[in-house]
Amino acid sequence: MVLDFYFDFASGYSYFAARRIEWLAAAHGAKVRWHPVLLPALTQVTGVLPSPVVPVKWAYVTRDMQRTAQEEAIPFNPSPAFPQMLIAPGRAMLWVRANHGEEVAVSFARTCFQAYYADAVDIADKAVLLGIAEGLGIDGSAFLAGMEDPAIKSQFKEGNERALAQGVFGVPFVIAEGEPFWGYDRFGNLERWLAAARKVA
Amino acid sequence: MVLDFYFDFASGYSYFAARRIEWLAAAHGAKVRWHPVLLPALTQVTGVLPSPVVPVKWAYVTRDMQRTAQEEAIPFNPSPAFPQMLIAPGRAMLWVRANHGEEVAVSFARTCFQAYYADAVDIADKAVLLGIAEGLGIDGSAFLAGMEDPAIKSQFKEGNERALAQGVFGVPFVIAEGEPFWGYDRFGNLERWLAAARKVA
Repeated sequence: MVLDFYFDFASGYSYFAARRIEWLAAAHGAKVRWHPVLLPALTQVTGVLPSPVVPVKWAYVTRDMQRTAQEEAIPFNPSPAFPQMLIAPGRAMLWVRANHGEEVAVSFARTCFQAYYADAVDIADKAVLLGIAEGLGIDGSAFLAGMEDPAIKSQFKEGNERALAQGVFGVPFVIAEGEPFWGYDRFGNLERWLAAARKVA
Repeated sequence: MVLDFYFDFASGYSYFAARRIEWLAAAHGAKVRWHPVLLPALTQVTGVLPSPVVPVKWAYVTRDMQRTAQEEAIPFNPSPAFPQMLIAPGRAMLWVRANHGEEVAVSFARTCFQAYYADAVDIADKAVLLGIAEGLGIDGSAFLAGMEDPAIKSQFKEGNERALAQGVFGVPFVIAEGEPFWGYDRFGNLERWLAAARKVA
């Protein structure tokens, strides 16, 4: 069983999802495939504006994120730069995956999420991403060059297009054998679905 | 403690919410104030299109509603007319409230929801609404005239405006002493919030 996990580093609910997806999968013998995407590229399909540009919605969403964090005891202390569009961390993750494998790439992604949402560090700053990469034993100058590699840039773009083709129109989004789950608030449903799928198997 | 409950008869998630809100409130010693609204009038603020007109989103939403209904054993057999914009049931409910009080109005609303989402009956049909009203002992000709009363029509419009002023931009939406809960998927949060509020009181 594979869980295709679509997320955007710019999304607070993606942070919540990224903290939980690996142990949720592990508990049900599933593997996670991490797909960094750019939410504004996906929402073109639905015409939905990013929440931060709609004041009444953003006021609600910030409150809801804080409430969720509090209820689940999730560290939540976002960077003052939040919210903003984030492209560099997604590209960086793809380069790390291509050069150091899935496991290091996932560690990179989780550290980015923690830095941005729990430790108030701005991961739009390439010096911060460099620090995270070097902390994982990655060569700094190769990493910095890699983020600017046109091949990586188009890989990130193609990832968005593949996500759209899979019916992904928001984040976080998980697809488990064709079954779609949109939103961190569907992780309970995902968990029950995985439990039921195991019984059948 | 009062729960302001905003819903649209056209919304499947409002149906789920309407089935649960009363016993949820009762369990925590709260009262519910039912506010029928027109979702398209609210989403003008956020620019969000109604899900049914966005094919990729509607495909997901129908699947998600079925999954929710299945998980929670909620009867879910919508009218073939679903989805559609619904104005008559909201106006009718306001007239019933004005002339027969809150309790009968809530019975009317719950019967409408059940007819439309569980018994596949089209509540856009005024003959159906008439049947529901007469089943509650309401005089049929007064009811039919009441739905067309300009005062009721503007009351429905004003209700939408009041909802917008309260920060309501979607349905179902519950506000409990200023704390906002958007979506049926936040009923778990609402329940925990009510439990915590009782402990403090």
